[in-house]
Amino acid sequence: MSNLTPDKRSIEEAAIRIAPWIHRTPVLTCAAINEITGGNLFFKCENFQKAGAFKSRGATNAVFQLDDETLRRGVATHSSGNHAAALSLAAKRKGTRAYVVMPENSSKIKISAVESYGGIVTFCKPTLEAREETLAEVIRKTGACEIHPYNDLRIIAGQATAALEMIQDIPEITQLIAPVGGGGLLSGTALAAEYFGTNIRVIAAEPLGAADAWQSFTSGAFVPSVNPQTIADGLRTSLGSVTFPIIRKFVDDIVTVSEDSIVHAMRLIWERMKIIVEPSSAVPLAAILEDKINVREVSTGIILSGGNVDLDHLPFNPS
Amino acid sequence: MSNLTPDKRSIEEAAIRIAPWIHRTPVLTCAAINEITGGNLFFKCENFQKAGAFKSRGATNAVFQLDDETLRRGVATHSSGNHAAALSLAAKRKGTRAYVVMPENSSKIKISAVESYGGIVTFCKPTLEAREETLAEVIRKTGACEIHPYNDLRIIAGQATAALEMIQDIPEITQLIAPVGGGGLLSGTALAAEYFGTNIRVIAAEPLGAADAWQSFTSGAFVPSVNPQTIADGLRTSLGSVTFPIIRKFVDDIVTVSEDSIVHAMRLIWERMKIIVEPSSAVPLAAILEDKINVREVSTGIILSGGNVDLDHLPFNPS
Repeated sequence: MSNLTPDKRSIEEAAIRIAPWIHRTPVLTCAAINEITGGNLFFKCENFQKAGAFKSRGATNAVFQLDDETLRRGVATHSSGNHAAALSLAAKRKGTRAYVVMPENSSKIKISAVESYGGIVTFCKPTLEAREETLAEVIRKTGACEIHPYNDLRIIAGQATAALEMIQDIPEITQLIAPVGGGGLLSGTALAAEYFGTNIRVIAAEPLGAADAWQSFTSGAFVPSVNPQTIADGLRTSLGSVTFPIIRKFVDDIVTVSEDSIVHAMRLIWERMKIIVEPSSAVPLAAILEDKINVREVSTGIILSGGNVDLDHLPFNPS
Repeated sequence: MSNLTPDKRSIEEAAIRIAPWIHRTPVLTCAAINEITGGNLFFKCENFQKAGAFKSRGATNAVFQLDDETLRRGVATHSSGNHAAALSLAAKRKGTRAYVVMPENSSKIKISAVESYGGIVTFCKPTLEAREETLAEVIRKTGACEIHPYNDLRIIAGQATAALEMIQDIPEITQLIAPVGGGGLLSGTALAAEYFGTNIRVIAAEPLGAADAWQSFTSGAFVPSVNPQTIADGLRTSLGSVTFPIIRKFVDDIVTVSEDSIVHAMRLIWERMKIIVEPSSAVPLAAILEDKINVREVSTGIILSGGNVDLDHLPFNPS
């Protein structure tokens, strides 16, 4: 095992480390969606997780490993989304500060989530260059420790605990589906299946409008995410140098789905399961509805990655 | 005990009778809402119930007591809402038909819910007279057995099982809040508290724009619901001759809330708990947010009555 892959023990330790600070989220089933898909689907509800997404697992696992001297200087990241809120909450709990660089066009709701957890926001232009430069400047000034949203062994080990819990709670699962953006959740899911499951097939679902992970996986060579066009705002990022090799080695397949399917799947989850999920969470079910993944005669676990949506801007069209 | 009040045993029997057909719904808590309200709140998630509302409890309890001869002729009701869907589903499970009289202006989503469970819909003008006349006509033609949505001992005993489960699952609860429309859920909740709890205070919350139950309770004389104006579409009906006396005797207080509070509370539940509830479900939390109910230094159970909303017509205003 490469030392750039979290080992079994690091995931077990992550589970113990974060347990007091995160929810062991429920696994829900839905008779209506099983009927529609012909599957036996189990949904791991990370939309109910602290700060509204699985990101609290990795962020907590990373921050709670830092030594006192590092903690004193705070942590930092650039993110427009759930990692920023999760990192802010984890830092707050450790009595330190999170410095978060956010694009100036971030939604009000995401900015206020970060601020509500005590995150210190620095705005920048909405380009990757501006984000990285601004973050470097913040770190230079503060001495804060950067916690990358996914290209980090501690983050991946933390995200792996969602699938670990699911495998413990529903031992009959033989197939796991996760959405893929930067690949932190997917890497962790695949490693949990490898270490803690028995012959579990791991499949990723990705929006066709941001299909860089599919392209990378299929071609075997890293393809960056350039100008991604998808409503699934958690899935617009590129794979990382740590996540891509893990995904190549441990993931069985990546499939892509249309934007219409994502909205349709999201609506189905809202209407039938009565739970709120963000578009990224609906991507695995979209792949099932598009018949890209066979769910017949197997028990399939799906990770609902998060539930942070802006209720003022929902994608449902009046019918 | 009057023979117009379900006794303890009838509620225990209802719980056993309906158990195979309904969900024992989870009880959720929310740290953020506890912080906002200063309370220790437990939410009984009947929005996750079969057919999306607590109504499945009463309808199942009623239909599953009918003898074969009665079942052969089917069941009937007039309803524009959740009782119609719940009755249709219960009838389908007993291999019989539900005849449902619905106002012609019922929402498409509610009509299709009833039809999806095999209910046979007859439309009528949207007045109480038209509903009752059309129902009488349907019953004359079919011989079907009327199952009233709330003014029925079997229905009340069924609805009581929601509070019974909550008292079993969270023994520390000393206060229960339910919304009130026709009073079936409220009557059942109050009886469950009386029979199975120890000194549990029962409070009802009602929209100010449909405050007939509050008026009836306060004046001691039945006041019908005339031209109710509220977004909480499950709470527009009048109390019944069975429910009102139970409520007078066993309910401690009824409080009223504004429409703005209902929408605000509903949004809070969606955003913070990541679950979908209908406006009626948000009325108890609205009462807490309006400081009409003291939740400090007690553990309070709230019944989230249902989750059937039309996603094309949500009440949230862009901020």
